[in-house]
This record gives sequence, C-alpha cells and structure tokens, in this order.
Amino acid sequence: MKLDALARGCGEWLRGTGPDSDIVVSSRIRLARNLAEFPFIRRCTETQRRAIARLVRERVAEVDAWSGTEYVDIQGLGDIDRQLLVERQLISRELSKAEGPRAVVVEPQETFSLMVNEEDHLRLQVMHSGFDLEPAWNKINHLDDLLEERLPFAFHEQLGYLTACPTNVGTGLRVSVMFHLPGLVLSREIDKVFRGLQKMHLAVRGLYGEGSQALGDFYQISNQLTLGKTEEQLIARVAEIVPQLLEYERKARQTLLEHNHKELHDRVSRALGILRTAKTISSEETLLLLSSVRLGINLKLITDIDIATVNRLFLQTQPAHLQKIRGRELDTAERNEERAIFLQKHLPAA
Amino acid sequence: MKLDALARGCGEWLRGTGPDSDIVVSSRIRLARNLAEFPFIRRCTETQRRAIARLVRERVAEVDAWSGTEYVDIQGLGDIDRQLLVERQLISRELSKAEGPRAVVVEPQETFSLMVNEEDHLRLQVMHSGFDLEPAWNKINHLDDLLEERLPFAFHEQLGYLTACPTNVGTGLRVSVMFHLPGLVLSREIDKVFRGLQKMHLAVRGLYGEGSQALGDFYQISNQLTLGKTEEQLIARVAEIVPQLLEYERKARQTLLEHNHKELHDRVSRALGILRTAKTISSEETLLLLSSVRLGINLKLITDIDIATVNRLFLQTQPAHLQKIRGRELDTAERNEERAIFLQKHLPAA
Repeated sequence: MKLDALARGCGEWLRGTGPDSDIVVSSRIRLARNLAEFPFIRRCTETQRRAIARLVRERVAEVDAWSGTEYVDIQGLGDIDRQLLVERQLISRELSKAEGPRAVVVEPQETFSLMVNEEDHLRLQVMHSGFDLEPAWNKINHLDDLLEERLPFAFHEQLGYLTACPTNVGTGLRVSVMFHLPGLVLSREIDKVFRGLQKMHLAVRGLYGEGSQALGDFYQISNQLTLGKTEEQLIARVAEIVPQLLEYERKARQTLLEHNHKELHDRVSRALGILRTAKTISSEETLLLLSSVRLGINLKLITDIDIATVNRLFLQTQPAHLQKIRGRELDTAERNEERAIFLQKHLPAA
Repeated sequence: MKLDALARGCGEWLRGTGPDSDIVVSSRIRLARNLAEFPFIRRCTETQRRAIARLVRERVAEVDAWSGTEYVDIQGLGDIDRQLLVERQLISRELSKAEGPRAVVVEPQETFSLMVNEEDHLRLQVMHSGFDLEPAWNKINHLDDLLEERLPFAFHEQLGYLTACPTNVGTGLRVSVMFHLPGLVLSREIDKVFRGLQKMHLAVRGLYGEGSQALGDFYQISNQLTLGKTEEQLIARVAEIVPQLLEYERKARQTLLEHNHKELHDRVSRALGILRTAKTISSEETLLLLSSVRLGINLKLITDIDIATVNRLFLQTQPAHLQKIRGRELDTAERNEERAIFLQKHLPAA
C-alpha cells in the first residue's frame, strides 16, 4: 500500500463534516467475526494463520464492494508504517505489536477496513465523519453480508457470533462515537458526565482506545454489552445518549463564552500563537493546543483556519506520520523540531 | 507637565543606544544635596518644605542649562500620574507616597531630573542609555555646580556633603548601572555572580530599586559606599566591574546558543508568539516574555523587531502608563486586556 500517500492524506472520518461535527468527530462500528473452519487465533498455528490471511485476501478480492481496497501485510511492514496505521485507527495497537501472519484491508478513503488475525480472525470496521451511526450501520451490515456469503462464520443458534473473548459474543458489535469535549473539560464537568455514562454500561476511552489517555479532549463512548440485544438496539443505546452529551457540551461552551469570554479567547488565541511560533513541541502539547484551537474555530473565536485543517494536524503531527512525511526515522528531539516546522507550514498566519 | 505626552514617548535612557546596550540598559548617577539654610526634611515644617520647593523652582528657572525643564508639583498629581513618574524612574516610590509639598523637575528628554523634598532636599539624577558613566558624571557634575552657585548646600569640611541618612554622607553619590541579564538567569549563574558583587560592597537591586524584584531579568548594580573616596573613585569602582559582568553575560548567552540553541530559539519565538496573541496578560508575564524577546533580538533569533520598541514596551505596558495612554482608570482585569491590545498593536507580525 502507498503508505506515504496515506500519511499525506486524511481519512473520510477526519474531514470534519457530517452531522454535529463540531463535537462529534467520528462514528465507528466494528464487527468481530471468526471463520468456522479454523480455531480461534490463540489456538491457531502459524500455518493456519497464514491460511486464514490467504483465504480472506482471495475472497475479499471477489467482492465488487471491496474493489479498490488494498491488502496490507502487517508482518512485512517496518515499525513506522505499523505505527502509522495505528495512528490512523486502521489497526489496533495489539495487531501492530502481534507476531505471525496478519493483515489489514483498507479502503482508500478509509471509510472501512478489515483487520485479519487480530484477537478474532476478522475485525470489520466502518468509520464516518460526524454523528452518523445509522448510515455507518447500513454500510457495515452490507459489507458483512457480502463477506459472509463467501466466508462461513462461526455462529451459534443461541449465542450468535462466536468470538475469542466472551465480551464480544453475540453481535460481535462495538459502536464507538468519538467526541471532542473541551467545554466539559474546561468547566470540570467531564468526570461527572462520565460517571453517569458508566452507570449506563457505556465505556469511555481516550483517542487511541482502551487504556489511552484522553489526549486533546477527545473521548470515545462505546457500548460494553454485545449479547442479548439486536445490533440495532445496541446502536440505539449509544445513539440515544449522543444528543444529551451534545447538549451538555454546547451548554458548557455557552457558559464559558458568557462568563469567561476573555479567558477563553485568551486561551484559544495563545494556543494558536504558540503553535505558530514554537521551534520544538511535543506531541502531547500539540494535542492540547490543537484542542483549544478546534474549540476556538467552533466558537468563531478563530476564523482563519478550518476544522478540516485542525483535524488533519491532529493526525499528521503524530510521531509515525511526521516520520513518514519527512521520509526518515527521527528521534524524539528531531520529531519535536519537525513537528514545529510542520505546524508552522500548515497554520500560516492570516 | 504634559504627562500624556510623556507616557507616549520614551526617555533617552530607553532608546537602546549607547555602548554595550545589548546588556547595559542605562547608566544613572544621582547626587543627594541639602540646602544649608533649612533643617533636614524629617525636621522640616510644611511651611519650610513649601519654601524649599519655591526656592528651588525659582533658582532652577534662572539656569540656562535648565531651560526647557518642567517643574512638576507632585502634591497636585493624581495617583496614576504619580505612578507614571515612578514607572519612568523619574521619582522614587517614596516621593510618590510621601505627603506635603514636593516636586520633580524633569528635562523633556529625561536625561536628567531633580527630586525636591524626598529624603533629602534635592536628589539630582542623570540617566544615559547604555554603559556611559563618564559622560553621565560630567553632565551631573556640571548641573550640580550650576545649582550650587545659586543654592548654598549643607557641606562639612571633613565629612563632605551632609545628608539625611548617614549612608549618603560625603559625596551623596549613587552610581547605578542597569543590566539585562537573561543569559545568567537562564544558565542559573546569576546568584553566584551576585554573591561576588556583594563581597565587593556593590548593591544589586531589581527594576524599581530597593526591595523590588528582578522583573524581566533587569538588575541594577550600584555602590554602597559614598564616603572617604572621590566621586571619580566611586564611579570607577562600579565601572570596573561592568566589563566583567558583560563578559559573563555574553559567555552565558554564547553557551546557550551553542548547547541549547533549539530550546533558546523556542523560548524566544514562543514569547513573541504569546505577546502577539494573548487577549489578557499580566504585567509580570509581559516583563518575562519581553525579556525573552529582548534576548532574542540581541542574539539575532528575532529580526523583525528592534530593541528600542521592546525597551519602550517594557515601560508602556506598566499599569500607570497603560491607564494614561488609554485615558482612564482601569482595574486589573481591564489593564490585562488593554495590555494585550497594546502589545498586539506595537508588535505587528512581520
């Protein structure tokens, strides 16, 4: 795959369009599937894993909807390329660090991807920009059907789809909505909101999934249950909290605008000032400052930059992206300098 | 006096010219004098103080060298105007806060001034830009002679000039050199250097004299002794340490450039970035950031701003200056906003 081109571009899910995209960055749904004729990954031999990868590659190639996708052999990639795919959320950290034959099939616009030989044989994912769960569900449901016609899945009459981990059994479905919640963070209401979500059996994660910190005020909300409900019910469960969370965040932003306008404008304006002038800057500080800029654009405190640019910079200032774009390996100090140069190039003063 | 015009302008001593003005901001000399026919200030009645002020005003008006100077009655000034004179170092905090008849005579270019009824009847001061002690001494010596022809000073054959405080007896002279020492501050060598100076009976003070903090990395070095030496010897004592201090500071800057170039450039560039984008900023933060910018200009890391502009901003972003320029009283929050607006106006992006 032309990973260089990938690094320079930006997936559909980061375009910053779609419903409520001032707060909802992306909607993603994934399905966990296993092939009936093979044991679960942890019990597979290397030969079996290779056979799975080959089989999937062949069958996928037969499907019209999958034409144009690229099959990427993870084993054959260098560290930077693997990390690049993680940063783009096309593969999990686990798949990047695993051993043995494994792959990801990527649609060039990154609207969907298929991990092969991760925790399950197949992990199909659809990503849409903004709050767009229903179209995402229709899309993944269709892609899944097309796969199932050619690849017999492990399915149990009563339990549903069988998966390596019991927490995924049933639908094998995870619905995740990525929010940008700087208002709730600044107003210190975020913890309270999250405690409420957890009571509703919804999981809250940072930018890079489980265990990752909420860098740049990004939070993923997703379902914890997969069993005993239909896919539509599980999706509805996540979807129904979105308007509420949107309202909380909008209210927090409005309150900040009304009662702390000057401080907020100061924070946002300085953030852009620093991004435009730093000569060395860490990934963490960049996320923090870009988050303020993103908020500033949405509140019209910043008018000379668009959301798509900021969304893209969130991604392209990550370590692997920087190295890929620069065309060589860089140590931390070099990356911090390169990041500053990159930011200044892409955030020209008005 | 047209204090409005004063607030908008900039004294000669802040022009940023003169020898070694990358490090030495100004050279100032003051002479403490008392009129023989009056008791010291602390023992003066209000009527006597008024008589002193009137007498000085009359005699000064007779001297050609003093034509063009303005006599400012401190008692008749509002708080902001008094503080303005303190910020410009034309009067001391003490004179500003004292009661009773008192004044300052100011030369429009601010190359010299004369406080009347401070701790002593007269405190004559000459200020030059850069390291320029000898011309400053020649100037003040001449001005003092002209005053002495018309105002008999309290003088004792053995002790010399008599002053209210014994520490000023003899010459009544204080020589102060104001340094900008960000290199020694950043390299954490400043305390070591100051301990050395104190052993040599030299005093180290901050921007606004005794008890003030070293805001913006500005330090005043001055003599502690006034008795038992001639004026020339006392001045030489301060003057001889200047080249050494210049060397220390230059070495510190060079070392930073060689070993921490990127960090230094980052610090300097961000400082300017913040000054150009903040929407609210305190006086302290402004001094701190302007200090980095001043260092950056001297090290040619910043090329689109000149030292005179930064020197002027050090002064004009002080509270009284801001209020004077804005034309009305401002509370702290308003000043912080006004300061940000002022900085952005006077530090336009290249």
